[in-house]
Amino acid sequence: MLSFENDYSSAAAPQILDRLQHIAAEQHPGYGSDQYCQMATEKIRQACQNPEADVWFLTGGTQTNATVLDTITPAYAGIVCADSGHINVHEAGAVEATGHKVLTIPGKNGKLVAADVDDYCSQFEGDANHTHMVYPGSVYVSQSTEYGTVYSRDELAALAQVAHDHGMPLYVDGARLGYALESSECDMTLADMAMIADVFTIGGTKQGALFGEAVVFTKHNTPSHFLTLIKQHGALLAKGFLLGLQFDTLFTDNLYFRLAKHADDAAERIRTALLSKGYTLTFDSPTNQIMITVTNEQADALIKQVRLSFIERLDKDHVVLRICTSWATTDEQVDALIALL
Amino acid sequence: MLSFENDYSSAAAPQILDRLQHIAAEQHPGYGSDQYCQMATEKIRQACQNPEADVWFLTGGTQTNATVLDTITPAYAGIVCADSGHINVHEAGAVEATGHKVLTIPGKNGKLVAADVDDYCSQFEGDANHTHMVYPGSVYVSQSTEYGTVYSRDELAALAQVAHDHGMPLYVDGARLGYALESSECDMTLADMAMIADVFTIGGTKQGALFGEAVVFTKHNTPSHFLTLIKQHGALLAKGFLLGLQFDTLFTDNLYFRLAKHADDAAERIRTALLSKGYTLTFDSPTNQIMITVTNEQADALIKQVRLSFIERLDKDHVVLRICTSWATTDEQVDALIALL
Amino acid sequence: MLSFENDYSSAAAPQILDRLQHIAAEQHPGYGSDQYCQMATEKIRQACQNPEADVWFLTGGTQTNATVLDTITPAYAGIVCADSGHINVHEAGAVEATGHKVLTIPGKNGKLVAADVDDYCSQFEGDANHTHMVYPGSVYVSQSTEYGTVYSRDELAALAQVAHDHGMPLYVDGARLGYALESSECDMTLADMAMIADVFTIGGTKQGALFGEAVVFTKHNTPSHFLTLIKQHGALLAKGFLLGLQFDTLFTDNLYFRLAKHADDAAERIRTALLSKGYTLTFDSPTNQIMITVTNEQADALIKQVRLSFIERLDKDHVVLRICTSWATTDEQVDALIALL
Amino acid sequence: MLSFENDYSSAAAPQILDRLQHIAAEQHPGYGSDQYCQMATEKIRQACQNPEADVWFLTGGTQTNATVLDTITPAYAGIVCADSGHINVHEAGAVEATGHKVLTIPGKNGKLVAADVDDYCSQFEGDANHTHMVYPGSVYVSQSTEYGTVYSRDELAALAQVAHDHGMPLYVDGARLGYALESSECDMTLADMAMIADVFTIGGTKQGALFGEAVVFTKHNTPSHFLTLIKQHGALLAKGFLLGLQFDTLFTDNLYFRLAKHADDAAERIRTALLSKGYTLTFDSPTNQIMITVTNEQADALIKQVRLSFIERLDKDHVVLRICTSWATTDEQVDALIALL
Repeated sequence: MLSFENDYSSAAAPQILDRLQHIAAEQHPGYGSDQYCQMATEKIRQACQNPEADVWFLTGGTQTNATVLDTITPAYAGIVCADSGHINVHEAGAVEATGHKVLTIPGKNGKLVAADVDDYCSQFEGDANHTHMVYPGSVYVSQSTEYGTVYSRDELAALAQVAHDHGMPLYVDGARLGYALESSECDMTLADMAMIADVFTIGGTKQGALFGEAVVFTKHNTPSHFLTLIKQHGALLAKGFLLGLQFDTLFTDNLYFRLAKHADDAAERIRTALLSKGYTLTFDSPTNQIMITVTNEQADALIKQVRLSFIERLDKDHVVLRICTSWATTDEQVDALIALL
Repeated sequence: MLSFENDYSSAAAPQILDRLQHIAAEQHPGYGSDQYCQMATEKIRQACQNPEADVWFLTGGTQTNATVLDTITPAYAGIVCADSGHINVHEAGAVEATGHKVLTIPGKNGKLVAADVDDYCSQFEGDANHTHMVYPGSVYVSQSTEYGTVYSRDELAALAQVAHDHGMPLYVDGARLGYALESSECDMTLADMAMIADVFTIGGTKQGALFGEAVVFTKHNTPSHFLTLIKQHGALLAKGFLLGLQFDTLFTDNLYFRLAKHADDAAERIRTALLSKGYTLTFDSPTNQIMITVTNEQADALIKQVRLSFIERLDKDHVVLRICTSWATTDEQVDALIALL
Repeated sequence: MLSFENDYSSAAAPQILDRLQHIAAEQHPGYGSDQYCQMATEKIRQACQNPEADVWFLTGGTQTNATVLDTITPAYAGIVCADSGHINVHEAGAVEATGHKVLTIPGKNGKLVAADVDDYCSQFEGDANHTHMVYPGSVYVSQSTEYGTVYSRDELAALAQVAHDHGMPLYVDGARLGYALESSECDMTLADMAMIADVFTIGGTKQGALFGEAVVFTKHNTPSHFLTLIKQHGALLAKGFLLGLQFDTLFTDNLYFRLAKHADDAAERIRTALLSKGYTLTFDSPTNQIMITVTNEQADALIKQVRLSFIERLDKDHVVLRICTSWATTDEQVDALIALL
Repeated sequence: MLSFENDYSSAAAPQILDRLQHIAAEQHPGYGSDQYCQMATEKIRQACQNPEADVWFLTGGTQTNATVLDTITPAYAGIVCADSGHINVHEAGAVEATGHKVLTIPGKNGKLVAADVDDYCSQFEGDANHTHMVYPGSVYVSQSTEYGTVYSRDELAALAQVAHDHGMPLYVDGARLGYALESSECDMTLADMAMIADVFTIGGTKQGALFGEAVVFTKHNTPSHFLTLIKQHGALLAKGFLLGLQFDTLFTDNLYFRLAKHADDAAERIRTALLSKGYTLTFDSPTNQIMITVTNEQADALIKQVRLSFIERLDKDHVVLRICTSWATTDEQVDALIALL
């Protein structure tokens, strides 16, 4: 059955599978101390225009978020996050399981607004005693967001400024970073991200790799003994060279961004078709995730023909569905989807 | 350089890499709800002669140990473990990070002895008040052990009996289960394991897979909401079908055990050579890990020619090194090693 | 300076201080195994009309909430709570530090509404997959609430029903239980509470004791090894007999309720005066906490003459202050406060 | 029945109970921001000859150990402790519940030996990779120890030196600090302790107070936001002034040390009697705890006449019992005990 259910339904880009075949006879030291991790690190540093960035490779998104946030947030503090943020809603409490509260602020189109963060954090200064409250200790955003929307360069820089004004690092979850950066509406580059964020991730799982997230600390700010902390969080892959190999491949010949652009283009075709056929887009998202608001009847009809993600029930009569393209989406699949809309 | 450093230095068995190529164009639902996980589950149930076993697929060993032990051990209790146990020594405190104390008992050749566990647990009954102590809440062993030794069927059954007598489940870490079961000294089968252990793992990472550990609950005893708990522990792979595919391959045509036997045979050749050349084996291990006690000078000479693992310093003049074969070890590598011993 | 800042500014009721003097020469076994704890337990059971209730004595409110909620909430689950709930706002993340997420629902006058809880929990059944979300695992309310409001018997019974419908226990934080039960608007008794709640506390700290909270499990539902769990949470007092002695005194001759009524009456006098002088009550609270909405100038004038608690800034021009009476408030203090309003 | 069971069986020194009566009509701000805490802090600073020490007041010993150790030990690290240490054996895993492993080293007479700590920590430097192990992050000792023994000034200074050499703070649990400092064998003062330890506690619970432990950070090294961390650990007493009042009293006219000396003298009389009657002292302890090794029959006879603590079973025929004096022990009680020995 046709599927636009998510962006992690296919194995990996052919370039990655081919390289796996080629290294089958090799032997590598474990836990990321291999040459591929070193090569991938160099390529990512170059792509970030940050030759001294610290780069680490972990396996999955939730484990990466929990590991990084736990280690950059002070023990007495929590993590500021949009109410719709992935760590707040869809990670099974993995962050709270490390002992930190997620401090939510209502988002706008899935995005945190710098002024709102400033207002929230400012209450911890001034005329009242807040020693019994959970201090804001770090800021979490994702680029793109849960709703497929993107932060502009200025929006993200403003968030970083507010975070720093209040003594907090800004962490950007880039599980879909490529899809964001390649989208028509996004005015920032990977180098911008490496300038603005204190730490961010470059998602592999949803963008062409079998699995894997690269974590980039941009300011010589890797927590002390981070490798041990990764291990303690159950996030250290024995065969780290598999992560290195994949990211080395993705950052060769711009593959990471080419794959992302492919998905964004496919989404754009679908979005155009949706609008021409009178569908309601729930959010104005320029990336590979398209949210549509449909009646129960429309939803029932659609999901008989194509696998989509159910996002939420809006009211008695309407639901939000997600159409998700990926690096692996084919033109034929897009055509087939458009035909049945 | 020649390497007998560990059993996770090579990518994966060719059968697995080939299948990855073949499924490149497929799309699968996420998080283990795919057909390959279902197929692998059925094959593992059959191999275990336990048609109702619950089978789960996680990514890495440390994360698997922490996730399972945290969820099967009562909140007020700790985990009984040999002092040399992997969770006690080499997992960066991942178990304690979940809030549970590891309760150590001196092992014999890396193995817990049932009578010692019984003595330890019996102190919590009877003439003294132990409400201020950490109760024993589960038992952890690995098959094979950190020292490459193996439990006999009777030894493990005795441990299970003692554990059950004290109201505890027995968990067996099978990161190297194949190497244990295929060893010449081991008198137990996978079906025996599924009879004796309450929950055990079948290691993929060290035994032919790219990564992955299968967790088998043998007695309808999977903790409630276990999928959510896996996610909370950061251990749920988005592309769960990659785990299913690998284990389905490993349990097709007995591949898992054939790969293990290959490594055990290679180790046996090396062991024979070591003894004939007068080396001292630190432990009498019949599996793919060989510990040798050598002088500092011998160690220096060896590690100039072959990558080995440093295990520990015995005294001022002696260290223990580990020679480790794997499913990927070639006859040529064994010959080369023997030549330079 | 005159103070209506809180209800824990005075040492303890004279009856408690006197008894402390009388037992000065006695020796008692530790950790709650003494005769006073036994006597207090019996008196509380009688007052609850629940002869089989399990009663435990802990030291402070936050530690009690964290200890009980951590032990009654499944590991995969969170705690449903009004957004204004004490555990959510003013306990420094003590609950999250045990690994559980606090799941907030907007409250009405500080109270959770049963239908809202039902709606929230119902989303975890039915047409969507919620295995990546934090399940609701227990319900937290306080009687009286943060805003001094009280649940009626029917409101609380409805919450218990909804909680049980969704498989959750209802926990009532009774840090100010006496003030609630003795208030003119409250139509429930301690026996009602012991019928409705699965576990609740009887606050001593704010109601006449030096310190101490009694925890009452009403349905033979004390978690296994609870004494060890109390100890593990750092909440086991060595001299438990001090807790027993205090609660035995409070539940002799109805002292607990007489002290509470005294504070409620004092608050009622103040409330009448406030209304007659044109003050705005922020909430319609019938207990010992009175929230008033005042201008910045009014606030400045007031806090020069009397210690009050700052609650929150409503807008640029207005703040909420709290006037709090206690068992120790004297008529003279009330007169003095009314005079300066 | 006569009792030498422990040193926390009596309420409090009369001076404390009297002062409680005198402050009954007072009102104080909460959570330690009162004048008594300030006065007690000044007196403790003076007694420590450290005018800039940071002093905090918590309620109980286990909660204090867990709160301080969790906040001074890096997230990736564990706490070095003698195998017999209180946090390792008798605190129900409260330290592990905060996520840190307790790293045990065999003690000598209950004491950590500096050279052993050095050896242990030195393995984390040098020729092997220890990134998968739990690093030593802080050192825990108690003065006096679980066995009633005391560290000499030199022994403790050597431990501090080794700790600092390895980048760790030295924490001294002084639950029985007075009994140690006043013992005939102890050559150190409170000022010495404040010179040597990075952080230590002055126990109140076992030494004349109703409850309470003072925590002294000696080097401007209080963790950031420590009050919030205390609250998060459930260890912040609402009526902090009760703690201030008690410690202010204990550090007035040297009361703390006079009470301790009283108990040590009583123990000395008992020890002399025990030796003259041929009893075997299990340890050579000069403080208020006397461990005796007796046959099962002796033990049975003794505990029919006097409450003592059972410590452990040595072998089939022998057990260790503890005779414990306190600040409240009377001459008559000592006479009665000696008479029945």
